[in-house]
Amino acid sequence: MALGAREDLGDARFVGIETLSDSGSTPDACVRRALTRGFDFVSVSVAIDEFATSVDPSTYPAKPLTHGDRALSGSEWSTRVVLRCSPEVERLAGAGDARGTRALNRELKWAAHVGAHAVAMNINAGDPTLIGRLLGSHVASVGETTRVWARTRMSGDKAFDDDAYRRWAATSAACDENSNVRAYLHITGAPKERREWERWLGERVAACALSVDSFVPNARGFPVLPKELQALVRAMFERGIQVVLTDYNESGVAAKKITPESVENEGERVSGDAAHSFRLYWEYLVYIFRGIEPLSEQALAEVPYRDHLQAPLQPLMDNLESVTYETFERDASKYIQYEEAVRCALLDVVDEDQEGTVMVVGAGRGPLVRASLRAAERARRKIIVYALEKNPNAIVTLQHLLVEEGWQEAVHIIPGDMRTAKLDAKADVLVSELLGSFGDNELSPECLDGAQRFLKPTGVSIPRSYESFIAPIVSAKLHDAVVACKDKKALETPYVVQFHKTFSIGGPKSVWKFEHPNHDGCIDNERYARVSWSHSEIGDISTTLHGFAAYFDSTLYNGPAGHVRCSIHPASHTMGPTGEPMFSWFPMYFPIRSPILIDSRSASSIEFVIWRRVDVHKMWYEWAVTAPSRGHVHNLNGQSYWIGL
Amino acid sequence: MALGAREDLGDARFVGIETLSDSGSTPDACVRRALTRGFDFVSVSVAIDEFATSVDPSTYPAKPLTHGDRALSGSEWSTRVVLRCSPEVERLAGAGDARGTRALNRELKWAAHVGAHAVAMNINAGDPTLIGRLLGSHVASVGETTRVWARTRMSGDKAFDDDAYRRWAATSAACDENSNVRAYLHITGAPKERREWERWLGERVAACALSVDSFVPNARGFPVLPKELQALVRAMFERGIQVVLTDYNESGVAAKKITPESVENEGERVSGDAAHSFRLYWEYLVYIFRGIEPLSEQALAEVPYRDHLQAPLQPLMDNLESVTYETFERDASKYIQYEEAVRCALLDVVDEDQEGTVMVVGAGRGPLVRASLRAAERARRKIIVYALEKNPNAIVTLQHLLVEEGWQEAVHIIPGDMRTAKLDAKADVLVSELLGSFGDNELSPECLDGAQRFLKPTGVSIPRSYESFIAPIVSAKLHDAVVACKDKKALETPYVVQFHKTFSIGGPKSVWKFEHPNHDGCIDNERYARVSWSHSEIGDISTTLHGFAAYFDSTLYNGPAGHVRCSIHPASHTMGPTGEPMFSWFPMYFPIRSPILIDSRSASSIEFVIWRRVDVHKMWYEWAVTAPSRGHVHNLNGQSYWIGL
Repeated sequence: MALGAREDLGDARFVGIETLSDSGSTPDACVRRALTRGFDFVSVSVAIDEFATSVDPSTYPAKPLTHGDRALSGSEWSTRVVLRCSPEVERLAGAGDARGTRALNRELKWAAHVGAHAVAMNINAGDPTLIGRLLGSHVASVGETTRVWARTRMSGDKAFDDDAYRRWAATSAACDENSNVRAYLHITGAPKERREWERWLGERVAACALSVDSFVPNARGFPVLPKELQALVRAMFERGIQVVLTDYNESGVAAKKITPESVENEGERVSGDAAHSFRLYWEYLVYIFRGIEPLSEQALAEVPYRDHLQAPLQPLMDNLESVTYETFERDASKYIQYEEAVRCALLDVVDEDQEGTVMVVGAGRGPLVRASLRAAERARRKIIVYALEKNPNAIVTLQHLLVEEGWQEAVHIIPGDMRTAKLDAKADVLVSELLGSFGDNELSPECLDGAQRFLKPTGVSIPRSYESFIAPIVSAKLHDAVVACKDKKALETPYVVQFHKTFSIGGPKSVWKFEHPNHDGCIDNERYARVSWSHSEIGDISTTLHGFAAYFDSTLYNGPAGHVRCSIHPASHTMGPTGEPMFSWFPMYFPIRSPILIDSRSASSIEFVIWRRVDVHKMWYEWAVTAPSRGHVHNLNGQSYWIGL
Repeated sequence: MALGAREDLGDARFVGIETLSDSGSTPDACVRRALTRGFDFVSVSVAIDEFATSVDPSTYPAKPLTHGDRALSGSEWSTRVVLRCSPEVERLAGAGDARGTRALNRELKWAAHVGAHAVAMNINAGDPTLIGRLLGSHVASVGETTRVWARTRMSGDKAFDDDAYRRWAATSAACDENSNVRAYLHITGAPKERREWERWLGERVAACALSVDSFVPNARGFPVLPKELQALVRAMFERGIQVVLTDYNESGVAAKKITPESVENEGERVSGDAAHSFRLYWEYLVYIFRGIEPLSEQALAEVPYRDHLQAPLQPLMDNLESVTYETFERDASKYIQYEEAVRCALLDVVDEDQEGTVMVVGAGRGPLVRASLRAAERARRKIIVYALEKNPNAIVTLQHLLVEEGWQEAVHIIPGDMRTAKLDAKADVLVSELLGSFGDNELSPECLDGAQRFLKPTGVSIPRSYESFIAPIVSAKLHDAVVACKDKKALETPYVVQFHKTFSIGGPKSVWKFEHPNHDGCIDNERYARVSWSHSEIGDISTTLHGFAAYFDSTLYNGPAGHVRCSIHPASHTMGPTGEPMFSWFPMYFPIRSPILIDSRSASSIEFVIWRRVDVHKMWYEWAVTAPSRGHVHNLNGQSYWIGL
């Protein structure tokens, strides 16, 4: 029975159980028992008698070492059962013992054979490289049917938990970050600082085993989670990560359950059925799950884009499609900012008795034309608008708008590229919406340099300036997605992404800024920047660097009449009239070829270098990590990715 | 409003309308009108005034050449509207005129810009290579957003329609069989012979325009389709192909509608609304659609496998998974045949007072053990069963079955490979289920040659023999699927496929046969065969050869007690007890690198050569087409595909 009806939280609505009292039962008996108690799946031991599996697995034992497969259907195995390896076999295999390794392989192969939902192996002992090799070798040989859950731990002890995180990172590195080997986080206590657990949100976490140990009794004696673990479980649910309730800690030691005196726990007393005594815990999870804020309509629409890599647009080489314009036009918050910026600019630059000239360069299907006309009305300025557009399909729409909106007098359509179009008029205000998620990445500098010849000496550009920002992140999912492209170029391409399973190792730092109009004698739009995050900025925790998040913050206009911004920087994100964030831009993700462990014990800092390069045909970025260790330069000479001019 | 609620027929439940009376209306007006009349989408002209589009498209005309895009949302454009190119522009472009080509490109680009469901272009005039290049160039530049429907025709005149088919094949060939360029079959009359239209079932057909011309009045004066077109429409619906009702023929000439006197067609008379007068035609399509037999449970389960390429198993190199055994065991019809074969064999080979020995080689999870025990009971023979199995996971299940089914006395489990296992017992009956879809393709010959040392001199093998068959087919969808793999190896690999959008150019012909036990002094399992289909066998129609279908027909047992077969040959397919066909095997598909036009005018025959080759490590097939023209040998030396021994 699911925790709730919400489907946007994915598999998080299904809860599993892992209890000592299941020992010795067949998987089908455990499944039936769990289902009647409200749970959706069980975690059970693969072996009937765990020591039996440590016999020499190269011979055929007389008795079967595991329960039969036919009592459950294939679909039940794949949705209802997680198989656990035997502790003694895990210990021997983790120590490199050959017989233990063969026995572990037999257990893993059995789990794959029946098609279990996952097979769980403890990685808290033994050599992470040996274990990572074993798990990687297994998942590579069985394909994508059965995932491996690598059981790691979180106890609330900072040093202990940091060690567990590094063991996980080492295991994952040994199997080359195989996306079918995921962490199974066994939680027995709450960390003191949020960042200690938040880093896991960027890792490949399959599920959390929540020990009854981690609960505390509330005033009425009912089991509840400490505040920090409530936040953790909520954050996991929001990322579709399942919870398994368990009555022992990760060393296999039984934990005592909390039973309020007011509750007659007849079930357990009478039947000895431990699953029943989990009821209060399960109900508490239902309470947490159902308490999660429903998503706004806009956030729901964005669910498919979470952690989904989008190749950046080629705005000059390709013409936008109608549906892309439609999507952009839907973001009221952005055009409210533009309207306000044009209004302030008109007040400052155009006299009341003059006729102002506004030039919209890249008019598309007209949203900035509309915003400019509205701004003029509010500013009580008479204006004439020139709408420059290079896309012949968008011009059809502009032509229709002229008639439909009665714009014939006020608006002139000029077909052509703003860098080369011929036009005698000069503008008081040059309005454009050429910004990309990283500010300059859609060639706004090059286009506006070309268009500024249309400006009067007193004229202004909207936007007036934009600044680019970079932040280091943990994001195994994005790294996996890039690797899955099986193309070296994919590892050297920045993507537009709605971040979801991501953790910020350090806050965004500015790399460079562009201003318009640019009156430099010789305009140079190449850039170079070096930014770093010190050990104290990172905090005293180990993390895995998977790449960098990128943002922009723009000043649309700044003058006596007002200062109008437009930003997707997390600290200054532009909000819309209904309190929803502006959604026209997702951030960008700059991947790195191999994840890098940022080890808290060596007090490492992170340093990042980035270049913006331009030649006659194209613009591209190059980037490199130079600390904690010096890596190669990504996308050298634009070999993998560039934007055509 | 869909024709019915069935979703297994895909988009076929949505019907479009294309009517002369829509000329001059805006697309949104046409959509609104069509929706109120029961239709789901409209086919409308892209241009406001078709001659206006033939002006020089390198300049910007003062007035827009097409209706605006904003009156329909992106999702309405993509589901409700098919745009038609202008006839005059099509004519000029098809003749190679430069201005016409530019104008056509502008129309195609507009359709892609708005994201229309499709853009339709007539290919019945002009040079197919010029048109194919234009369409291929267009779809390659706009990506997968908007498909091209190439309008071709079917009038019922054999020579005329064969020419249309060849024009389609040439257009498709010119754009390198681009899967986003599909046929739009404009039907004005019924072919005399079924094969004239059935060949289209193997082509990339997006939709059929069904002209009211193609209907005839029934006794009550209502429009109905002639019998052959009823079958055609039903077959199209079954393949998810949509119908568009139209009131003109493919040359643009208006067709007269059938109006029974009993129906007061007030709508049309009063409002002049032609859509309304389509009502009786639409209702007739509802009748046809709803009359299609619902799929059986088994057929429904197979829907996802239709035209879906499955890589063949590697039965010796890989161990089967539990769920694969589970699927196989579900096919009662197969084990009924096996049980009957063992029963007959026991009657013929084992005396009543003897204890017979049955050896199941490759026992898996025990279905043949069970069938053998049942057969013995029915034959009143006492038997002992040896169950040989190499998969250690399957042995676990066999061990449990021994206890659960009380088989301890009668069944001995022997772990190991049948080719090398050590065992002193000798069998009266050697039972195996090693057949693949092509008979020998899962190495049954090599395995049984190895296992026959367990047979008594009087012993028999079940199966006793199996024969392999090959048939030439039209199947653009399968060819597309192979090409989509973007790997040369994919074009040289045979696949397991449930054929759906396929047309048999000629019936299956035998290529070779294997018999067991094989008492040849030196066993040679290599084979070579050459088969051909003459022009008269193909019939006097042009077709496109996309590869070959492959089947097996096996004699499980043949003796005094009976002859038991097991076959997936279309003419002798084994049926189950409930009248459903046996479903354990789908046929195979041998692709060819490039489709070949079989031109009826040159009275071509088809000749196919195939080799079965074996070395110490592997078995593979090589194949080539040698008529109508000699092609290369596919999979030479097993370079792309082989089965490991």
